[in-house]
Amino acid sequence: MTKNRLEAFSDGVIAILITIMVLEFKVPHETTWEALVPLVPTVISYLLSFIMVGIYWNNHHHMLHSATSVSGGVLWANLHLLFWLSLVPFVTAWVGEHEFAQIPVIAQGLVMEMAGIAYYLLSRTLVHHHGRESGFSQALGWDLKGILSMILYPTGIALTFIHPWLGFGAYTVVAAIWFIPDRRFEKAENHRNVS
Amino acid sequence: MTKNRLEAFSDGVIAILITIMVLEFKVPHETTWEALVPLVPTVISYLLSFIMVGIYWNNHHHMLHSATSVSGGVLWANLHLLFWLSLVPFVTAWVGEHEFAQIPVIAQGLVMEMAGIAYYLLSRTLVHHHGRESGFSQALGWDLKGILSMILYPTGIALTFIHPWLGFGAYTVVAAIWFIPDRRFEKAENHRNVS
Amino acid sequence: MTKNRLEAFSDGVIAILITIMVLEFKVPHETTWEALVPLVPTVISYLLSFIMVGIYWNNHHHMLHSATSVSGGVLWANLHLLFWLSLVPFVTAWVGEHEFAQIPVIAQGLVMEMAGIAYYLLSRTLVHHHGRESGFSQALGWDLKGILSMILYPTGIALTFIHPWLGFGAYTVVAAIWFIPDRRFEKAENHRNVS
Amino acid sequence: MTKNRLEAFSDGVIAILITIMVLEFKVPHETTWEALVPLVPTVISYLLSFIMVGIYWNNHHHMLHSATSVSGGVLWANLHLLFWLSLVPFVTAWVGEHEFAQIPVIAQGLVMEMAGIAYYLLSRTLVHHHGRESGFSQALGWDLKGILSMILYPTGIALTFIHPWLGFGAYTVVAAIWFIPDRRFEKAENHRNVS
Repeated sequence: MTKNRLEAFSDGVIAILITIMVLEFKVPHETTWEALVPLVPTVISYLLSFIMVGIYWNNHHHMLHSATSVSGGVLWANLHLLFWLSLVPFVTAWVGEHEFAQIPVIAQGLVMEMAGIAYYLLSRTLVHHHGRESGFSQALGWDLKGILSMILYPTGIALTFIHPWLGFGAYTVVAAIWFIPDRRFEKAENHRNVS
Repeated sequence: MTKNRLEAFSDGVIAILITIMVLEFKVPHETTWEALVPLVPTVISYLLSFIMVGIYWNNHHHMLHSATSVSGGVLWANLHLLFWLSLVPFVTAWVGEHEFAQIPVIAQGLVMEMAGIAYYLLSRTLVHHHGRESGFSQALGWDLKGILSMILYPTGIALTFIHPWLGFGAYTVVAAIWFIPDRRFEKAENHRNVS
Repeated sequence: MTKNRLEAFSDGVIAILITIMVLEFKVPHETTWEALVPLVPTVISYLLSFIMVGIYWNNHHHMLHSATSVSGGVLWANLHLLFWLSLVPFVTAWVGEHEFAQIPVIAQGLVMEMAGIAYYLLSRTLVHHHGRESGFSQALGWDLKGILSMILYPTGIALTFIHPWLGFGAYTVVAAIWFIPDRRFEKAENHRNVS
Repeated sequence: MTKNRLEAFSDGVIAILITIMVLEFKVPHETTWEALVPLVPTVISYLLSFIMVGIYWNNHHHMLHSATSVSGGVLWANLHLLFWLSLVPFVTAWVGEHEFAQIPVIAQGLVMEMAGIAYYLLSRTLVHHHGRESGFSQALGWDLKGILSMILYPTGIALTFIHPWLGFGAYTVVAAIWFIPDRRFEKAENHRNVS
């Protein structure tokens, strides 16, 4: 019943988050190409966050599309996910302005790990709401990518203690894993349309 | 007739409000964990406001969903609610930047009280528009939570004169009361779908 | 055909405009009530602009709802209106920060006059697109309020040369005139639903 | 299946981009007309970007409207386009604040060229997804305007080495070319509605 507005509201918040990150690109005081050099780390950091938030939007959309209804608990779980996503612009800017210093990169990993956990909790809440035998739950199945990313972010955080670029590299691997659209739900949707 | 766009417009404004509050998280100039400590009050203040605005979105959605039509007066009442909600980011930032000083916490309570009153006025306007005998008005019934929060905010403001944390605690109690989804409208919706 | 996305896009832009104006409320560096006093002109200026933009959203919605289709020229005219509306946050902040100084108040009147003209041009473009004999054009009829505001804004600008508050008062009168929902379109909509 | 939310999400991001550019208009510290003079280049730069982003929204809408479905590759290609569009506010501000200095104007041309290429890639991805013999692909036909702009932006960049205004003039020509709505898709839509 409230599913459509849950989707619309989440879409709105995510669209704004992905866009206000560009407000961090401070306009240089000079008009040389060199004046853009200090912005390079911010752009790289932004690029990863842009892709990450875009992926969340995409997967969120697929998962909610498969859901047949939502509950009060789902609203809680969704707001929890949006909260962690809302911290992404902050850590993105911190990483970018300090050229991938160790602690900002760790903070970025923590926020992304928390967002990953929140997404996982949302999926579990939806499974609980629909029932284990529902079409939704069978379509979701074993959430390989969710579990992989919840392992890879702590790995990335650990690698940051060796060198921040190793940690950032691990986060990029998670993005690459997630970007591939989730065929499980597409299958379930086709199935439902047929039946 | 204009109900859908009223919902869409309110969703847009609320999604933006909830999101621009993160612009208050100033990126630290250092890359130490200590540099994040001054942000803790802002994050706590933000957390409450994030939940409060999320609740307004949720309850607004439930109430409007039950409405069968809107009038010019409803548009006025809705704009009035959005106005007070639009001041939330300001008081949130003021409270956060000054670590829960007395006057900012009182200001936060006043803005939330006004938003609560505006929400109450919106519900009364809708009752008036639908008529006292309508399904909408019977579903709304006695607005216990609305009245409770309009009492609790002034209580919180009074408690702030003893200690700001007591006041902030009272505001948190209101959030806890409201977060529980409003079953009255869910019942009414089920009823209408059946009949 | 493209009407729905034109509405959705305009809604998005207007919702953002109405909301980013609050970013102008600079958080005071002190925690006294006196620290809020310098914000009073900004709040008054914001209040008028909030209502004005809310009215544009409302009337825009009514007019577009009555339209049966849109053309390339309508897209142009709509973008033109959004351009002038997008300047509202700027003049609002200028008026507020300088406590209703003469030139900012004149600038505010000019931007609002241009938005009024742009709205009028949009209505004429829609009349031209639907044809003078169409239900849309007959519903629109003689645009009394549009013409009144196009006269009142220049009057307000002229009054500002005597005292800025007189000009600001004239702008407030326009807001009061427009806030009343446009019954012409509501009638036309009812008519169409019946036939 | 996911087409509607792809449209809604793109609309959201584009509406935000077009609107946050006005945040670059710094409120003058004085209340004279002269205080607005330094803003003139920013306004001109903003005007072109406002129109450009408005055109992308318009053409994106037409193209997606004609699409019958989307694929994972289309989501990638669309996110790629939104990424380059998200850099428009930055280059717009850089050009405006430095009164059309050479390097900022070149940077603006580069970002617009990349957005143009991203749009072209999106159209090719959609053609590939629908098949060369599909109604979509036949409606798209030979993308004259897309190819023209991809040639005109580098021309503009080259002209900037003579004088930045020549380059900016070339970008304006692209805007003029694109603003005319794309009749190819309108025809295809009419065709589909008829059949």
